[in-house]
Amino acid sequence: MANPLSEALRDLAVGNRMCANEGVLDAFGHVSMRHPDNPNRYFLSRSRAPELVSPDDLIEYDLDSRPVREPGVPQYSERVIHGEIYKARPDVMSVCHHHAPAFMPLLATGTDYVPVFHLGSVGGVRPPFWDQHDEFGDTNMLVIKPEEGASLARALADYPMVLMRRHGVTAVGVSVKDCVFRCIYSTRNAEYQSQALAIGSAIASLSRGECDLAAKINTSTTGLTRAWEYWWMRLERAGLMVPAARAVAAAGKSRAAAGKAPARKAKAAKAAKKSRRR
Amino acid sequence: MANPLSEALRDLAVGNRMCANEGVLDAFGHVSMRHPDNPNRYFLSRSRAPELVSPDDLIEYDLDSRPVREPGVPQYSERVIHGEIYKARPDVMSVCHHHAPAFMPLLATGTDYVPVFHLGSVGGVRPPFWDQHDEFGDTNMLVIKPEEGASLARALADYPMVLMRRHGVTAVGVSVKDCVFRCIYSTRNAEYQSQALAIGSAIASLSRGECDLAAKINTSTTGLTRAWEYWWMRLERAGLMVPAARAVAAAGKSRAAAGKAPARKAKAAKAAKKSRRR
Amino acid sequence: MANPLSEALRDLAVGNRMCANEGVLDAFGHVSMRHPDNPNRYFLSRSRAPELVSPDDLIEYDLDSRPVREPGVPQYSERVIHGEIYKARPDVMSVCHHHAPAFMPLLATGTDYVPVFHLGSVGGVRPPFWDQHDEFGDTNMLVIKPEEGASLARALADYPMVLMRRHGVTAVGVSVKDCVFRCIYSTRNAEYQSQALAIGSAIASLSRGECDLAAKINTSTTGLTRAWEYWWMRLERAGLMVPAARAVAAAGKSRAAAGKAPARKAKAAKAAKKSRRR
Amino acid sequence: MANPLSEALRDLAVGNRMCANEGVLDAFGHVSMRHPDNPNRYFLSRSRAPELVSPDDLIEYDLDSRPVREPGVPQYSERVIHGEIYKARPDVMSVCHHHAPAFMPLLATGTDYVPVFHLGSVGGVRPPFWDQHDEFGDTNMLVIKPEEGASLARALADYPMVLMRRHGVTAVGVSVKDCVFRCIYSTRNAEYQSQALAIGSAIASLSRGECDLAAKINTSTTGLTRAWEYWWMRLERAGLMVPAARAVAAAGKSRAAAGKAPARKAKAAKAAKKSRRR
Repeated sequence: MANPLSEALRDLAVGNRMCANEGVLDAFGHVSMRHPDNPNRYFLSRSRAPELVSPDDLIEYDLDSRPVREPGVPQYSERVIHGEIYKARPDVMSVCHHHAPAFMPLLATGTDYVPVFHLGSVGGVRPPFWDQHDEFGDTNMLVIKPEEGASLARALADYPMVLMRRHGVTAVGVSVKDCVFRCIYSTRNAEYQSQALAIGSAIASLSRGECDLAAKINTSTTGLTRAWEYWWMRLERAGLMVPAARAVAAAGKSRAAAGKAPARKAKAAKAAKKSRRR
Repeated sequence: MANPLSEALRDLAVGNRMCANEGVLDAFGHVSMRHPDNPNRYFLSRSRAPELVSPDDLIEYDLDSRPVREPGVPQYSERVIHGEIYKARPDVMSVCHHHAPAFMPLLATGTDYVPVFHLGSVGGVRPPFWDQHDEFGDTNMLVIKPEEGASLARALADYPMVLMRRHGVTAVGVSVKDCVFRCIYSTRNAEYQSQALAIGSAIASLSRGECDLAAKINTSTTGLTRAWEYWWMRLERAGLMVPAARAVAAAGKSRAAAGKAPARKAKAAKAAKKSRRR
Repeated sequence: MANPLSEALRDLAVGNRMCANEGVLDAFGHVSMRHPDNPNRYFLSRSRAPELVSPDDLIEYDLDSRPVREPGVPQYSERVIHGEIYKARPDVMSVCHHHAPAFMPLLATGTDYVPVFHLGSVGGVRPPFWDQHDEFGDTNMLVIKPEEGASLARALADYPMVLMRRHGVTAVGVSVKDCVFRCIYSTRNAEYQSQALAIGSAIASLSRGECDLAAKINTSTTGLTRAWEYWWMRLERAGLMVPAARAVAAAGKSRAAAGKAPARKAKAAKAAKKSRRR
Repeated sequence: MANPLSEALRDLAVGNRMCANEGVLDAFGHVSMRHPDNPNRYFLSRSRAPELVSPDDLIEYDLDSRPVREPGVPQYSERVIHGEIYKARPDVMSVCHHHAPAFMPLLATGTDYVPVFHLGSVGGVRPPFWDQHDEFGDTNMLVIKPEEGASLARALADYPMVLMRRHGVTAVGVSVKDCVFRCIYSTRNAEYQSQALAIGSAIASLSRGECDLAAKINTSTTGLTRAWEYWWMRLERAGLMVPAARAVAAAGKSRAAAGKAPARKAKAAKAAKKSRRR
């Protein structure tokens, strides 16, 4: 029933909500996805907290971050982060810009990120820093101009993420799921790294060899599937699942099962619809 | 249907609850609002935990912090904080006094607050400290006397907030929403700053230029709207939304929609009413 | 309908649950109350996690910590803590023994507790330490023998609490509410103090004069009432309120109101009853 | 009605979920159990997040970690951790491999674990470290080959747990409950120890004598029962209880009670069944 694009858009909405539910995003930040059928387009929500994003909120952009159709709703001011990275990195299918609390001590002190456990390998060893002030002087710190986005994309180079001094992080992935996994586990790693630094001893990083091998295994095995199911279930329990996704899921069940759909599901869907209406 | 004042009072009650739900307030602390039509009056709840405040709890005060009508219920002992600041700062429309845990390490050590990321700009660069002991010697630390409130207001000067040694914080805003936004994001920033200091490196502050620009953009763009919607949704999910607000919201819907109001809403309203009755 | 003793026992059960819900107690620790009509008796739950304690679980003890009636259920092994303190301190009406996480860094390092904000005054300035090893050598660390309890009581002297090295804290109060308030806010203060120490600067304590004044105001004003209402509401929202208390509350309402008791209440009561049965 | 094996398998599923609900496990990690009737077999879930594990997910393995029957579903890649430990340690009836956040600062810095309070005694004094790199060079950090598992088991020796540098922890027990208790309280202790180290003073460990005595009392008294009831209740309140366990529990009640089974229970069971189906 559901076509591949609408399933992908649902996953993008779910990915936004997962990142919020797992402590990577709050009222700010966003996850985007390159159009699966058109590499010159990407999808990003209208301006709203990621925890509230539904497929209906997704706007289609060209790589200059201009909406393909006038959306008639407020848009994120920092969308050039996404467009400029999709231009520079043909391999990238998903981008997340966030301000995860766990990264802030590193960003405020200019401390290099290193993977302190195998799952932290998704962030790489010592990914690059970017400081907007270096090239653009005093700004409001937001990445709004195309040249600011392009500068950030150059700093990212071919790394899996770039740390933005006194601001946040931008991470990429070969899929929405890969990007979400990277954001969540690099955030966990950043937290562990800061706590390790707080106890004042020298900390051990994975070697580059270990990091390369661990980063590969994490995406090629069942680990990604397992984690996605777990975060999905947590979203559901928090009453935060994308309503459309729930409808799709319900449609996939036997008529009998659908007939006795749990009240919690209907309520969550209603609540989500209501918040969408606001 | 709802008049502007009653909507403003609802927002004030909601703002109290948001600050509680987002970790700024607990059993103590309070958010007030200047009367939108009478600059010589302000509204503040009767003495109760901010998470429980409803529009019915709001008391109207003159700027000497005397209730306009005898309320017949216990009042906050520290209300002069609000009155004296409204006297001294005609631009201020809302005041929040709080003891957010994240600020405590700064207040206990006398460490200057600096914005370590763009959203932390709402607190300003190195806002002033005030120590009640300097002028008043040993007290119970509460700001109860008019002269104590006036002293605090002098320390605040034209800053967005003032840090109270071994006590808490008082922040102001041009609206309830602005004040709530300032309290929540300065609290986030204080947390990040302490964690950064714990890892022992020199921390980077936004420059004054960056801070001024960032503080402006945060209130003039869609950011405030986005965050308010987010915190509102979180209040609702926590079962903490102001009952009156829910009623108003329901009234704004089509009759059909109102007819099938979710059970959760009714339950939450009932629960809130019950706790009000206690 | 409810007599004073049964109301007091309900408050004791509620106090146990509040301490659990506010992060002071987990599976272990306990709050007791001296018999309001007989200073030679006290009440303490049978052996179970404090979050599950109901009035039915409370056992009456003499001051040698022998049950007045054979309870026929497992008892806490550390009850001499309570009995020996009631013997030594006639002013004490309630005792709480806990292992709040926030205190652990102080207990593990032997760092003196100091009030870093006004509400922390409830713990006093530099309350005494007690180390079971000093007098009793290697033990299993539990305070089980009468002489161990008596030793702890001597260390407590006339302080509001005593810190037990590599173990936990024992705090007292003039009522269950006072004791609960002391435990919760001294725990908050311990958290702030540790975080302040982690950023490496000298920390400021309230002076003894400030501490005495602040500790007084906290119990003599509306603060205690306000906090109790807040914690009570949080217990209810967590589905953890004592069932008996709910029944009592329901009885106090009009018949009509009782007739439409919210489903959540019934469910919570049922859940609690079930867990009691286990 | 329920036979001993099916009760044991239910406890194993419950133990997985408890460790998840108490912050020891997230999407990764796993708890296993030796077959109670056949020391050459053990049970471990198919590859899925431990919070979702049901008795139906459990696979029976021989000690070479080969499934007794082809399961037809993805399996954990690190199951040799369990098999090799069961081979080397006949006294061990349960194994848990985890990456609890609280341990990460110790693992990243190579800091010895020491019990800083009596319940931390379950982890022992200075349990051994194991570094996969020492023997196997650059790997993806996962313990997949039998010789890697055997190496880890040798490092564990007769300790209650082994710390895996830049990876996680593996702990054992004489029963599932004992193992779960060890994992949860050693995790709490690790958190307190790190926080103590962050405030920069020398920290006090239990002496070996105290540790031995405390570790004994924790398993031989009512403490284990009390804690298990508490974690069970918390699982239920989180809507995470194993569905089969609920059915068993319901069966044990009177028909009348079963007739008015709370809606929450049915809903949770339905939700769990649904997630199982995914």
